[in-house]
Amino acid sequence: MGKLSFVGLGLGPRGISLEGIDELRDADVAYLEYYTTPHEPRLLKELESATGRRLSMVDRAFVEDGTRILTEAKEKRVALAVLGDPMIATTHDELRVRAVRSGVETKVIHGATIVSASASASGLHYYKFSRTVTVTREAVNRLTQAYHILHQNLLEGAHTLLLLEYDVDSGEGVSPAEAIAGLLLAEANFKRGVVSERTFALVESRLGREDGARFADEFVELSKLKYGEPPHSLIVPGKLHFTEVEAISAIFDIDEAKVRDNSEAVLRTAQTLVPKYVAKTRRALNGVRSKLGPQYSSVVENVELYMRDAEVNLANGEDELAMLNIGYAEGLLDSLSFSGVTKIDW
Amino acid sequence: MGKLSFVGLGLGPRGISLEGIDELRDADVAYLEYYTTPHEPRLLKELESATGRRLSMVDRAFVEDGTRILTEAKEKRVALAVLGDPMIATTHDELRVRAVRSGVETKVIHGATIVSASASASGLHYYKFSRTVTVTREAVNRLTQAYHILHQNLLEGAHTLLLLEYDVDSGEGVSPAEAIAGLLLAEANFKRGVVSERTFALVESRLGREDGARFADEFVELSKLKYGEPPHSLIVPGKLHFTEVEAISAIFDIDEAKVRDNSEAVLRTAQTLVPKYVAKTRRALNGVRSKLGPQYSSVVENVELYMRDAEVNLANGEDELAMLNIGYAEGLLDSLSFSGVTKIDW
Repeated sequence: MGKLSFVGLGLGPRGISLEGIDELRDADVAYLEYYTTPHEPRLLKELESATGRRLSMVDRAFVEDGTRILTEAKEKRVALAVLGDPMIATTHDELRVRAVRSGVETKVIHGATIVSASASASGLHYYKFSRTVTVTREAVNRLTQAYHILHQNLLEGAHTLLLLEYDVDSGEGVSPAEAIAGLLLAEANFKRGVVSERTFALVESRLGREDGARFADEFVELSKLKYGEPPHSLIVPGKLHFTEVEAISAIFDIDEAKVRDNSEAVLRTAQTLVPKYVAKTRRALNGVRSKLGPQYSSVVENVELYMRDAEVNLANGEDELAMLNIGYAEGLLDSLSFSGVTKIDW
Repeated sequence: MGKLSFVGLGLGPRGISLEGIDELRDADVAYLEYYTTPHEPRLLKELESATGRRLSMVDRAFVEDGTRILTEAKEKRVALAVLGDPMIATTHDELRVRAVRSGVETKVIHGATIVSASASASGLHYYKFSRTVTVTREAVNRLTQAYHILHQNLLEGAHTLLLLEYDVDSGEGVSPAEAIAGLLLAEANFKRGVVSERTFALVESRLGREDGARFADEFVELSKLKYGEPPHSLIVPGKLHFTEVEAISAIFDIDEAKVRDNSEAVLRTAQTLVPKYVAKTRRALNGVRSKLGPQYSSVVENVELYMRDAEVNLANGEDELAMLNIGYAEGLLDSLSFSGVTKIDW
């Protein structure tokens, strides 16, 4: 009976686990896939020396096609070595599903991966990270989804990890400066106040490698730096606990006063609109109050009541109800204008 | 000069990387910390055999206190071996910050961790996971925060990983059945329609170990199973891509028809209220339309206009504006009642 094993290689050239070495050594056929990071000759040497065997280098197309791997795995033990954790990429998930469906036993040996290590290395609390975003070369000039996810995360006070993808086929990666420019472009389009030149962010370059480096500053400053070879991760922190401020200061070697909470400036729609509408309605009501006869006292009372309700709703985080109630108060008052009772100055 | 290294051990007894072995071997003092998972004698043996040296087992209190580690690290190379990835736990972040502040060089060797491996092993797309939740023994009967995060994630269509914590001090862990019961209890309290007995979920037990096991079913069925030793992870999927349905079916060995999207049933507040309020306002308007003189035609027109706006807003996902506009339409109409023009039957 054959078998297909996915072996995670972790972050650096010596990131493979003992279990991974066992699996590669015992395989009849062993492949090394290298498509999501630069091809490092040292990695192949380290693996061949640790396992005492030859590995065949294969590219993205070979793994995506998968025909040869699946055919061999019907009879033999085939191992596919992959940088990071093998099942983060959907390509490997798909290959695994095809193997299971053709009756081939599968095995996964997990590895350290940039998606968790970037977060854990930052000093920020892991459980405060929300959805991760991948920035590809093709998408860097229209970061609509990334901008939307970052907005949502900041509204929740959560941190955001943006993985800047390296494409081995084109030999090009997304630099931190390009990702920042892409986010600022999205801000110029959507104008939700999510990011600005003063947004505070972290950059981790070549995480887990000996030449790894890290940087923390405002977008405008980070845009000016040279980061060297990929991969890079960009982290936009949300609400910060004081231990996180201390950790960033120590780990990224910057002054605590420079570590800033990006979530404070990001307002929910209702937080922006309700106070404005309450003030506007109160002003309009005060402008007509003395002109209204006693048959309108119940309207006036209710306008006041619902303005207060809207403020209470907002304070309780009940945004939708706050909007409903301020809308209702405005409608009560404006009806008097539409039915010709009085002119209202909004 | 001293140094403090944090060495991640990955998931199983042979999860340590070559780089981790180098670091432990070269250290003057090497500690093995075991507080978040059951103490496995095999782990210590594997590590001592791979590194050719003795390691001292230390407990949670020793690492949290950290005095001895920090004192030694001023003069010597100290390595602390930790299961999973060393920097996921805030305890290690804090120790690292203290080391940096006392001028000690620090180094982190990342490892495979259950927080990314649970997600990657599931067949679900990694980038669709939103905030992770830890369920502790103490919190299992009041899962307010977990329930809230799960709700938020499902509203976004995102997947949720719930890590069920094992406490080595008490010797007890949270079982999948207990976590499910806790979520159903929160549902009974908050009644937001987030989970039910029919919620579809995945359980991964002892991930990355040889005796690992996985299960996929509805809450009511998962509650009846025996899972054996911790650790366990519970995953509640959100919106599913068809490749995710195929992957779950293959990996968890269940029929595709049983794989269900939990996000479809979870409605945003405005999705529940706006259609109800529009229908109610339309009914009320139709009830009085014939009784209103021509001076009220502008009011009637505007009520209709703003009902339509609310529906368009809702379809566009502009929940707050939908609520504002339907509130305004209701107010316009109700003002006629408050000012005695006509009785309105809501």
